[in-house]
Amino acid sequence: MDTQPLYQRLADYYRRAIQSGALAPAQRMPSVRTMVRTHHVSLTTALQVCRRLEDDGLVEARPRSGYFVRPPAGPRLAPVPDPDIARPIDTAQYEGIHDRVSRFVTLCESEPCSANFALAAAPPASYPHAALRQSMMRALRMHSEQMVGRAPPQGHPQFRALLARRALDCGINAGADELLVTHGCIEALNLALRAVARPGDTIAVESPTYFGLLQIIESLGMRALEIPTSPQRGISIEALELALRTQPGIRAVVVVPNLQNPLGCIMADEDKQRLLRLCHAQQIALIEDDTYGALADDGPGLAIKHWDRHGDVIYCASLHKTLAPAMRLGWTLGGRWHDRMAMFKFAQSRPNEPMAQIAVADYMATKAYDRHLARLRHQLRQQRLYVADAVARHFPAGTRLAQPPGGMLLWLELPEGTPGMTVFEEALRAGIRVAPGAMFSNSARYDHFLRLSCTEPVGAATDAAVRRLGEIVSACGK
Amino acid sequence: MDTQPLYQRLADYYRRAIQSGALAPAQRMPSVRTMVRTHHVSLTTALQVCRRLEDDGLVEARPRSGYFVRPPAGPRLAPVPDPDIARPIDTAQYEGIHDRVSRFVTLCESEPCSANFALAAAPPASYPHAALRQSMMRALRMHSEQMVGRAPPQGHPQFRALLARRALDCGINAGADELLVTHGCIEALNLALRAVARPGDTIAVESPTYFGLLQIIESLGMRALEIPTSPQRGISIEALELALRTQPGIRAVVVVPNLQNPLGCIMADEDKQRLLRLCHAQQIALIEDDTYGALADDGPGLAIKHWDRHGDVIYCASLHKTLAPAMRLGWTLGGRWHDRMAMFKFAQSRPNEPMAQIAVADYMATKAYDRHLARLRHQLRQQRLYVADAVARHFPAGTRLAQPPGGMLLWLELPEGTPGMTVFEEALRAGIRVAPGAMFSNSARYDHFLRLSCTEPVGAATDAAVRRLGEIVSACGK
Ligand SMILES: Cc1ncc(COP(=O)(O)O)c(C=O)c1O
Ligand SMILES: Cc1ncc(COP(=O)(O)O)c(C=O)c1O
Repeated sequence: MDTQPLYQRLADYYRRAIQSGALAPAQRMPSVRTMVRTHHVSLTTALQVCRRLEDDGLVEARPRSGYFVRPPAGPRLAPVPDPDIARPIDTAQYEGIHDRVSRFVTLCESEPCSANFALAAAPPASYPHAALRQSMMRALRMHSEQMVGRAPPQGHPQFRALLARRALDCGINAGADELLVTHGCIEALNLALRAVARPGDTIAVESPTYFGLLQIIESLGMRALEIPTSPQRGISIEALELALRTQPGIRAVVVVPNLQNPLGCIMADEDKQRLLRLCHAQQIALIEDDTYGALADDGPGLAIKHWDRHGDVIYCASLHKTLAPAMRLGWTLGGRWHDRMAMFKFAQSRPNEPMAQIAVADYMATKAYDRHLARLRHQLRQQRLYVADAVARHFPAGTRLAQPPGGMLLWLELPEGTPGMTVFEEALRAGIRVAPGAMFSNSARYDHFLRLSCTEPVGAATDAAVRRLGEIVSACGK
Repeated sequence: MDTQPLYQRLADYYRRAIQSGALAPAQRMPSVRTMVRTHHVSLTTALQVCRRLEDDGLVEARPRSGYFVRPPAGPRLAPVPDPDIARPIDTAQYEGIHDRVSRFVTLCESEPCSANFALAAAPPASYPHAALRQSMMRALRMHSEQMVGRAPPQGHPQFRALLARRALDCGINAGADELLVTHGCIEALNLALRAVARPGDTIAVESPTYFGLLQIIESLGMRALEIPTSPQRGISIEALELALRTQPGIRAVVVVPNLQNPLGCIMADEDKQRLLRLCHAQQIALIEDDTYGALADDGPGLAIKHWDRHGDVIYCASLHKTLAPAMRLGWTLGGRWHDRMAMFKFAQSRPNEPMAQIAVADYMATKAYDRHLARLRHQLRQQRLYVADAVARHFPAGTRLAQPPGGMLLWLELPEGTPGMTVFEEALRAGIRVAPGAMFSNSARYDHFLRLSCTEPVGAATDAAVRRLGEIVSACGK
């Protein structure tokens, strides 16, 4: 007969489940209530079990959410190393992204997909569409005549006011009238670049960076100069300084300081301020893309715009990652380029239609929005840690992994010499979509990298997909 | 005692009302039923009255709408004359529209407005917002999950299919997949110009032309070359030919062949074909803006795209004049530039959000849409004829007037030497908004012109506003 106390035997039971992977890292533990029901034990015993597992470092409590399986103590894969900032600037790198991206999209569409690690948006079920529908219905009942009036210039006043209020969360204190509503962050970036630079000018960007930004720059006839960027700290300010000293015609730098795409890193506050001082001193525009900021595990960090005293920063953001991928609502604070951007917005697409703005303002004014964000952050964290752990278990030795403090993206360096495009194509044939590193640069520098977007649910199917991907990487690397 | 038959006495009664202006040109006659009730006569008598007035040329019957007061037999004002096509091309005319338009907008906002002849959109009540609301509600009930998915590339399939079907009405036979949904005609024009030309290139435009087009061209760093355009027949193809022979770097011509803004003219079908042949032979893009086509008194005319066999025409249109000014839904058929335009659309703003597309497709598939269009056309015709008549009565001798075959716009040439900007400013102070001719060109050629948008209701208030405007014109002309 077993002489161990009941709670200890139960704790062992769960320990084995965790060790076998039946309960995966970052997964929620069965609730205390479930334990009581399943094992016919008292509430006290169930709580003792949890506390024991917590003491053993196997689970962690999260306020009001219950207990979760702890992720592995630290990254079991080495981090992706910092770039060599002394590397000479590659000036023959300005073009070609459109062809790469088109090729990528065409290839993706050619194969059925069972596991998607390519899309940088959470699955539809992660977004509050029922609540949004209600807000839309209410807006229609109360304001449908606005569909047939004139769209309010620079955005609907109610939406602009709400955005200004919400911007306080990332330390931005701006009036609603400084704000311009756009068709997503993409349009905001277009307007920003058109306002500060002309065709032929050079724009400094992070390397690697979001392919959409490279497309915009290329489509505007500008040149993207890729600045070495640390997967841990973000853009190298030293490298940018060097570039500004040695390269003519740099008009702006575009950064994603909070949860960079694809690296996932968040810049330190000191670095944000140093970057701003540099841009101010050199009189170049600092374009800040805050698409992902609200998805950091610990909630939104400070925007660089927070420290902007002279209007040097153009802040661009949207609701596509946080609220509604298809609604195409974004906005920008143009600083000293506000009027010029408003002029381009008018000439390029006219003000946004009002109904969606009213509806979203209605929804964003509620606590439900905060609860949704907290839930989404939490879900993405779980999924991200789960995939990171699976990669550590299934990928070949020599794989390196950035461990971002939030969001959905993982940036992987494959063992030296592994052809990322081949991995991408082989994975496609296996029904698995990933984003090859080549998409995030005009250079060949990231050809053995992958970006995994962790939007598949925690569970065996995802683990199996990562394992299959690991096998493909191993096979391609030989 | 009166020996005239009853019907004749009644006909005289209405004749006097028409002659005194109590029943204004283009106004609807009291219905037969009303006559019966008001005058205690039989239905037969009332019908005799109407037929008598019709025989006398005082009213006209419109199928299923009743009788209407006939507009004055012909224009009582001389038409605006054709331009001198041999005039030398003014090459110093490429810039400045932004400042003019900004100044115009700022001025307009500085004064309260009681009669608005400046806005090229019918008043909200002319658009079917209750039906649109219903369609939106239905779309939300059935498809709200599309807000949180991915916006379908190049537009929602259902909307594209519907637009393709509706395009048959103006003779365009194109597949839904040749069509790209945009944020209004404005975005379509931006994409078209970006696809066919580069900064520094020259774009031939009608003169006068829509200031929004001049703004787009200026904001893209291109040059607008204004081609003499007849208020009766549209762009002078001879003048365009001459320009193509003598001016380097012309990449495209943009025309509004159906109900040009501000002239209101419709090009003859032969001219549409001649223009297309010229563009094809010279290998320049023909950008066709069909914003107003559906508002012609006799229904939509043929688009130039109808004759396009080689993809030389980029057709651009929107629903803002016909259905919902604030919804920002437009589309384009890019011909051989389709892929390039799709690329720019993706880089510039991504695909449009889907809900409005679904809702509008739903509404546009019904007969209610056709009925709405017929009503709107009719209303605009009435209002336009009413204002034209008032101008003829109240403006000083020497005023000339284009008589367009549809839409809401009237283009007025004031007596030689009348300063249009002064008229505009004086009118503003009197609470009357008009668009000064200076807005429709980078040159000073139209400084003594006005565009009146006839969107105010038929009636004494509008007549009084036109009278006041006529007084201002007379005063400024001295
Ligand atoms: C860094 C970054 N900026 C902008 C965007 C797109 O912005 P939006 O959808 O708001 O136009 C993305 C989408 O992936 C992104 O990763
Ligand atoms: C000739 C012409 N094209 C385009 C537009 C604007 O198009 P949209 O509102 O569809 O962007 C106008 C509006 O006045 C116009 O007159």
